[in-house]
Amino acid sequence: MNSAAPAKHAPAFTQDHVLGINHLENDDIESILQLADYYADRLDERAFRPDVLRGCVILSLFFEDSTRTRTSFEMAAKRLGADVVNIDVDSSSVKKGETLLDTVWTLQAMLRPDAIVIRHTEYGAPEYIANRVDCPVVNAGDSWREHPTQALLDALTIRRALGKIEGLKIAICGDIAHSRVASSNLQLLSRFGADLRIIAPAVLMPEKLPVDNVQKFDNMEDGLAGADIVMTIRLQKERMGKALISSDEDYFRKFGLTMDRLNIAGPNALAMDPGPFLRNVQIADDVADHPERSLILKQVRNGVPTRMAVFEKLLTRNT
Amino acid sequence: MNSAAPAKHAPAFTQDHVLGINHLENDDIESILQLADYYADRLDERAFRPDVLRGCVILSLFFEDSTRTRTSFEMAAKRLGADVVNIDVDSSSVKKGETLLDTVWTLQAMLRPDAIVIRHTEYGAPEYIANRVDCPVVNAGDSWREHPTQALLDALTIRRALGKIEGLKIAICGDIAHSRVASSNLQLLSRFGADLRIIAPAVLMPEKLPVDNVQKFDNMEDGLAGADIVMTIRLQKERMGKALISSDEDYFRKFGLTMDRLNIAGPNALAMDPGPFLRNVQIADDVADHPERSLILKQVRNGVPTRMAVFEKLLTRNT
Amino acid sequence: MNSAAPAKHAPAFTQDHVLGINHLENDDIESILQLADYYADRLDERAFRPDVLRGCVILSLFFEDSTRTRTSFEMAAKRLGADVVNIDVDSSSVKKGETLLDTVWTLQAMLRPDAIVIRHTEYGAPEYIANRVDCPVVNAGDSWREHPTQALLDALTIRRALGKIEGLKIAICGDIAHSRVASSNLQLLSRFGADLRIIAPAVLMPEKLPVDNVQKFDNMEDGLAGADIVMTIRLQKERMGKALISSDEDYFRKFGLTMDRLNIAGPNALAMDPGPFLRNVQIADDVADHPERSLILKQVRNGVPTRMAVFEKLLTRNT
Repeated sequence: MNSAAPAKHAPAFTQDHVLGINHLENDDIESILQLADYYADRLDERAFRPDVLRGCVILSLFFEDSTRTRTSFEMAAKRLGADVVNIDVDSSSVKKGETLLDTVWTLQAMLRPDAIVIRHTEYGAPEYIANRVDCPVVNAGDSWREHPTQALLDALTIRRALGKIEGLKIAICGDIAHSRVASSNLQLLSRFGADLRIIAPAVLMPEKLPVDNVQKFDNMEDGLAGADIVMTIRLQKERMGKALISSDEDYFRKFGLTMDRLNIAGPNALAMDPGPFLRNVQIADDVADHPERSLILKQVRNGVPTRMAVFEKLLTRNT
Repeated sequence: MNSAAPAKHAPAFTQDHVLGINHLENDDIESILQLADYYADRLDERAFRPDVLRGCVILSLFFEDSTRTRTSFEMAAKRLGADVVNIDVDSSSVKKGETLLDTVWTLQAMLRPDAIVIRHTEYGAPEYIANRVDCPVVNAGDSWREHPTQALLDALTIRRALGKIEGLKIAICGDIAHSRVASSNLQLLSRFGADLRIIAPAVLMPEKLPVDNVQKFDNMEDGLAGADIVMTIRLQKERMGKALISSDEDYFRKFGLTMDRLNIAGPNALAMDPGPFLRNVQIADDVADHPERSLILKQVRNGVPTRMAVFEKLLTRNT
Repeated sequence: MNSAAPAKHAPAFTQDHVLGINHLENDDIESILQLADYYADRLDERAFRPDVLRGCVILSLFFEDSTRTRTSFEMAAKRLGADVVNIDVDSSSVKKGETLLDTVWTLQAMLRPDAIVIRHTEYGAPEYIANRVDCPVVNAGDSWREHPTQALLDALTIRRALGKIEGLKIAICGDIAHSRVASSNLQLLSRFGADLRIIAPAVLMPEKLPVDNVQKFDNMEDGLAGADIVMTIRLQKERMGKALISSDEDYFRKFGLTMDRLNIAGPNALAMDPGPFLRNVQIADDVADHPERSLILKQVRNGVPTRMAVFEKLLTRNT
């Protein structure tokens, strides 16, 4: 995958929007990942500023706080030469009683954006908008169902570390029930042939999973055995109706990813976490900060090239 | 007005600032509208980025929240190649006890802006600042007296739809008393020869109007008869000292612009609203969203080219 | 100092970071001031946009509100052609329980910034970060110890006004105890040979000063006699554990810089204040606004060229 130039035989990208992993064909995903890989190789070259979106305007609409994801999308757009307009939705006309759709229509008429990035607490809000505007929409996270660009950058990170996804044993542990990252990752990794397990206390285990063929475990020791990758997921307390966990200490004791537990998976097993992560709640310091065993900073680093690839695929499809 | 190039014989623009419709000569307005019309024609051309303000810095100072208007000014400046510095006044030194004038003087000394855009709750704040700085000032709305760029973009919208303003019958209905949009529009439309009526419940009818020769009505049926344009104005509850309206439902029943009422005006009468608008309070869904009878999205769309024209006229006058 | 071109024989700049005056050699300071002086001369030339940092990304991390300083750094970076990413730390992942260091590491991995500007309430936070990232860090103010770029711009202002620092009698009066500006200024001015006095009520006089050889006074009349420069410092009430001053009126009566008091210093003595300043608390209107005797707006104006020089020195050292 570390190609020196964009693959000449990359599969076609055929989508109008990036709304969820469940909306993308495998070829679409492959196509994004190949371009993202190319960009990831070149991120440290100061002068590398491909201006393929020069003159474009990207509208970024975050109805939920997320400095990290918003900034990653913004940086991706700027590196391609696009202008970005961030709308702080808290201070927008929504307060004066305007509906979501009127806010979006108004901003679209005003700014003539080339793409809209949207994060929203409601499931399906990005798709609802995509059906009512005339430009590509990118889902930057909705409800606890989809966060497609996170799953794409995680897949990129895994392929850059281990060369493939197919056949890898991947354990996702923690608050699966409330995590859109887990949901999108399960879908993508399943379709690319990973052998998936989830590990969670009963209260954080979802009733229904987006894919079949996932083994469920309620303890780390059984679930981790033989895993190539262990992905921890933060307790999404802001989405729990009430406290489901007795204490952070208790959670760490039972489900925290310590070095001993990572070694149960295997001596070369790698740790991942989409962040922001709670040290010594879901993951121990020495795992998170390990220079070889942790892929966490690589995940963060791969966010910008992945989102550059998403923008470029969507916005240059018909040119 | 849909000229293919800027009019060669456009009247001269002679102002140092754009503080209110009452400060502009008719030739100034005509000059802005002709350039705005030219820009409105070209807004969909991606490559159209006239860089006439390359290297300029626009300081945007909003003492009142308004994502919509602030973003429209910002986009206009960027499309001309200028840099924009937005100051969120809530988080500024005003909290540390600095006066308005010191804040502006400081920002001017620091940034050397080429123009200052200011929105303020106090009547005359933009003019007060304009008299004490050495660059052009644009009023982005002050108190309930003036919002000159809104009136300019509304005039542009009317001329692009109906080819003229002179002789048109235009009804403005709703919360006239608290609306700077109504105030600026009445002035501009009166000077360009429109036949004006206002329709409002007694509590929302202003004691004094900025122009003479406006007919007043307290019911929609009488006021709308024969109107070419019907402009609805939102209940500005944030500026009402106390609740002046019994309920939104009651208001809609008496003063909401329904399709039946728009047809009373005439079978071709057009609806306008400066937004953000309250659906089924001041205007019915089917009117607001009508592809031919509603000009609302066209108003929003015309905001950027109008503000581009204002910036260009002010900043290239002496070059 | 008003050189028409950057000094050919400027001393070498040798630092990896700008963390405090106490970290800089005199040659580093001289090197920054000479370049800042060159930029200050050219600030009114619209076309003067030296693009030496084209393609660079500056990350601005303010853990304390400061529109003024943040905007000054942002403008400096933009004038050199760099992109700036401002992170509003209040709305960042810190709220989700992430540590300061994880926030910075994440942003560094994501954005690959060429420099980080940081303001923090904790003493030493910028140095702590500098030791853990791989790019230059600029301290934009920490605790009440250091605000090095303010001291640099104040030194630039003094040299542009009086041609030198050595031998000047400089009185700093007001809330010395809580002021990082006073602390950084005392260090820089002492090392460049100024004759320093501080004037403050006993409760605002620090127990320990960062330099020796400073005369202390508890009244303006004695402290001001013969001063070439009088620098007032705002009451930093936000950093006082409890109210230390009985009333603003009382403070002004005893320690406010009136024209009579400035004339005690001398008929040509000059007033400075880092701002934001409280009129008629620490400084009288007629002093603050005097076109010749007040350097306040010149200080503000010199912020951008000084910070341009700091960025350029740090980021082009190895090229």
